[in-house]
Amino acid sequence: MTLILNNREITKILSMDECIDALTDAYLDFVSGVAVTRRRSDTLVPSGESIYGLKTMDGIAPSLGVGAVRINSDIVTWPKVGDSYRRVKVPAAPGSRYTGLILVFSTETGEPLAIMPDGVVQRMRVGATSALGTRYLARTNSRTAAIIGSGWQAGSQLLGLLTVRPEVEVVRVFSPNPENVGRFCSDWSQQFNQNFCAVDSLVEAVQGADIVLCATSSIDSLFEVGHFEAGMHVGSIKPPEISRQALQLADSVCVHVGHGKPLLTQADDLIVPDHSGGRGWEISDEFDFAACPTLPELISGAVKGRVSAQERTCFVNDLGLGLQFAVVAGITMRLALSAGVGQDLPTEIFTQLEHP
Amino acid sequence: MTLILNNREITKILSMDECIDALTDAYLDFVSGVAVTRRRSDTLVPSGESIYGLKTMDGIAPSLGVGAVRINSDIVTWPKVGDSYRRVKVPAAPGSRYTGLILVFSTETGEPLAIMPDGVVQRMRVGATSALGTRYLARTNSRTAAIIGSGWQAGSQLLGLLTVRPEVEVVRVFSPNPENVGRFCSDWSQQFNQNFCAVDSLVEAVQGADIVLCATSSIDSLFEVGHFEAGMHVGSIKPPEISRQALQLADSVCVHVGHGKPLLTQADDLIVPDHSGGRGWEISDEFDFAACPTLPELISGAVKGRVSAQERTCFVNDLGLGLQFAVVAGITMRLALSAGVGQDLPTEIFTQLEHP
Repeated sequence: MTLILNNREITKILSMDECIDALTDAYLDFVSGVAVTRRRSDTLVPSGESIYGLKTMDGIAPSLGVGAVRINSDIVTWPKVGDSYRRVKVPAAPGSRYTGLILVFSTETGEPLAIMPDGVVQRMRVGATSALGTRYLARTNSRTAAIIGSGWQAGSQLLGLLTVRPEVEVVRVFSPNPENVGRFCSDWSQQFNQNFCAVDSLVEAVQGADIVLCATSSIDSLFEVGHFEAGMHVGSIKPPEISRQALQLADSVCVHVGHGKPLLTQADDLIVPDHSGGRGWEISDEFDFAACPTLPELISGAVKGRVSAQERTCFVNDLGLGLQFAVVAGITMRLALSAGVGQDLPTEIFTQLEHP
Repeated sequence: MTLILNNREITKILSMDECIDALTDAYLDFVSGVAVTRRRSDTLVPSGESIYGLKTMDGIAPSLGVGAVRINSDIVTWPKVGDSYRRVKVPAAPGSRYTGLILVFSTETGEPLAIMPDGVVQRMRVGATSALGTRYLARTNSRTAAIIGSGWQAGSQLLGLLTVRPEVEVVRVFSPNPENVGRFCSDWSQQFNQNFCAVDSLVEAVQGADIVLCATSSIDSLFEVGHFEAGMHVGSIKPPEISRQALQLADSVCVHVGHGKPLLTQADDLIVPDHSGGRGWEISDEFDFAACPTLPELISGAVKGRVSAQERTCFVNDLGLGLQFAVVAGITMRLALSAGVGQDLPTEIFTQLEHP
């Protein structure tokens, strides 16, 4: 049988600490050449006034016995907000839904073991990845943190933070939308029985913080060199959030994988307002991310993490990996099977007698 | 609803001439930069004594309003047959089945429109592709043809041949296994009400033939320079079948896409007996396939097809395209919908409310 899961079920069974542990093992396997991953590709054509994008990435986690393909089939628009364009995915599928899938296959039999949406898994792996950056780069005696952003990704950053640095006592949250920040703080405070305070400015959030985690949809830098205090760790879910000057001031900048651009194939007549190849932001050539150590190297000990209390450190999530999906969807499947969660579809639907 | 098809249903509704027509349109769109395709990738790890391979390719055919991802999740072994290794896929999924899937998405809504196995579609697109090579390169007054091979791919080559050159009267079939050839000829003779003759040697098959189509699992060359007569067209479903010397003798060699190697990612401890990166054959550096014109260029008129009756021509299918799957699976879906064939699954299974 092929296990079919939905996001509600995945939310119930998937925990941040399990994500972090499983990714840690997978990054070690990646460094030793056991686990493999195919770089993300974006294939784009115009679709009316919008863009149709088919985004795929593959990875194999042999220790879990699974390979996975993550597929996003997106309708993307580019509304102008203020002076800049914003990248907005349109839930154009029936029922105002998005199309993002993970297919999990067995490395022993090849069969499709599970099919699940990517919404929860993708946030959990981003949160877990940033948390690993925090684990190796933030001071162990961190007590105060700032979260910049108040959306889904921000929640996952908070969850990851409190998993690797449970000693953190104060979390200040800022985003330009006060209503969102209020709701974010009240939702998460309730969940953790801990007080997360909404603040009115970015400066107020970051001043004196040991850890700053940016999780915004901004395509411009927001964490500037003037914010960067000695001993601070700054995390970012995408390269533009931390300014070039702030990156240059850092004693150590670690990236996720070190080849921050997807393989792009696009129709000749495609027009992307911000010229960023469909992602909404570009990796600036002004800072050499390719020369930075990567998270797998950090975890394996091939490069050092934080070495002094005064260091300024950064972790930048430059590009996702198919391997992350193999790992997080792989453990999600295992958890679902042992909890008896999900539906079954006959595997015959997705296999064949004919030699392909 | 998402349409679920099986190979039996696809066999009933998909015709070779529709495949050829749809691919012709798609190649024209490809040349003009409208249709796009992401190069195939192979991601490989050891799996016990075998290899586990996750092979994916994506393509978008805007004129059909679809994008597609083709996924193969294969267990591959390398038994030694005689002096050479043969690449054999193992049907290791439950019920001794193979895992090869095509997911078809809407470029308007992003939703998954259809999911189908790739077995029939993949052969039909190979047959149709070779047939297009034959259409542009073989003499229009061809009457005699040879098919080398007697498996599934050989059948699809025959089907394609008779679609673009219905004037062909004599087809001689050779493969090293007389029993297979006999069955092949009797099966197809019945279907076409035309006599296809099994012959005892490759020479007997090709001598005096106007068109020779190789469709074998051989990883060594089999069509040699001595076989290559003036005016002959030779097609091949993969580069090694035609010897380097024969290719060099040709007046014109056309390839499918002109970048014959997949993107390969593999585990460090992977051992592939034939050092071909998991495909069973290598593209030799001894002949410069990259300098050859491509099928889309041929179809668009950017390069000339056959210009004289005496020319020796070759068509070599160097690498498949995700675009082929978008096109052939796209028309298969349309045909199935209008014929009321297939099952429905709720699209909600494969979509989500959460922003991915």
